[in-house]
Amino acid sequence: MLHISALEKLVHEMSRLPGIGPKTAQRLAYFILKSENEFPERLSEALLRVRAEVHDCPRCFNFTDADICRYCEEPHRSDESICVVEEPADIMRIESSGAFRGRYHVLHGAISPLEGIGPKDLKIQELLDRVNNGIDGDGPTIKEIILALDADLEGDTTILYLTKQLQGKGLKLSRIAHGVPIGSDIDFIDDRTMGRALQNRVEL
Amino acid sequence: MLHISALEKLVHEMSRLPGIGPKTAQRLAYFILKSENEFPERLSEALLRVRAEVHDCPRCFNFTDADICRYCEEPHRSDESICVVEEPADIMRIESSGAFRGRYHVLHGAISPLEGIGPKDLKIQELLDRVNNGIDGDGPTIKEIILALDADLEGDTTILYLTKQLQGKGLKLSRIAHGVPIGSDIDFIDDRTMGRALQNRVEL
Repeated sequence: MLHISALEKLVHEMSRLPGIGPKTAQRLAYFILKSENEFPERLSEALLRVRAEVHDCPRCFNFTDADICRYCEEPHRSDESICVVEEPADIMRIESSGAFRGRYHVLHGAISPLEGIGPKDLKIQELLDRVNNGIDGDGPTIKEIILALDADLEGDTTILYLTKQLQGKGLKLSRIAHGVPIGSDIDFIDDRTMGRALQNRVEL
Repeated sequence: MLHISALEKLVHEMSRLPGIGPKTAQRLAYFILKSENEFPERLSEALLRVRAEVHDCPRCFNFTDADICRYCEEPHRSDESICVVEEPADIMRIESSGAFRGRYHVLHGAISPLEGIGPKDLKIQELLDRVNNGIDGDGPTIKEIILALDADLEGDTTILYLTKQLQGKGLKLSRIAHGVPIGSDIDFIDDRTMGRALQNRVEL
């Protein structure tokens, strides 16, 4: 107990952030109290600004502060292939690999019966609409869909569901490969990853 | 690069917090963007409120939102002994042990020549004034001073300096004991702590 209502309120709000427990929240609150150069004011303003300016892209549901996001905007990207991800942050991971130059679609989560998240809670209908009506609604263009979802139970469930919905539409459908990460020691790879790596072996 | 100015600004400000790197800041910013129930607004308000309401206690320099802090206010505490700490957070640690019922004095740091922090940057003159003029300025009352500073180089330097300043004033001067923590395995104690534990052994 800090016995100072404003300080307790700040600790309470900070400890809602993921990975920040009450002890860390208290340390951060003390840091904020002792900080100079108007830091709390600038952080406070940044919080309000991000909420006011950033919204979902109406096409792909990535975050943007413009009418449509930069990946939907860029004219030299292929309208024929679309990469489906769970979260906006995943796009950056794929972009920095430089291996994909098509468009994106953000589901904003994955199917999770345990957490009560079903297909209707995700941007799945919107993905089907894009497949039927094209990347920007101007007639069908999509020929390939790459599913880049997390390699966990929720990701697998979502891939299963999406495969059923998207099959029979004449699309090239794929999921990103699972296997041994580049630069890693074979000795340290877990059984399931090694199983996948053997199963999906590439002929030389 | 997020390519969204408001989001980049928030990540930039969040990553100034201690222990929060750019990657964690980005994860927190995405959490904030996706959060519901007006969370960013409430966090923003809490930041401004803590800055507006919380200030140093004019007597002991603990944080407070009142005229004087609760430990200076409480009438049943002894005005004869004062416990000197580095930071306001240290007071709670001592309070929850229940082993001290006197007053506090917060130095707001420790002497560190490497970081350019000298005695004048700390609330040391204010401590000497309290020794000379009493806990609240109504004539001398203090008979005992307990130094509860961190067990590091800066803490030791500060204790050395304070001892020189406070000696010869007829005060009972002490520092908190260093030794083996309660409940710990002797096998895992470092050499310096074990050296202190042996040196400060208590006769039975």
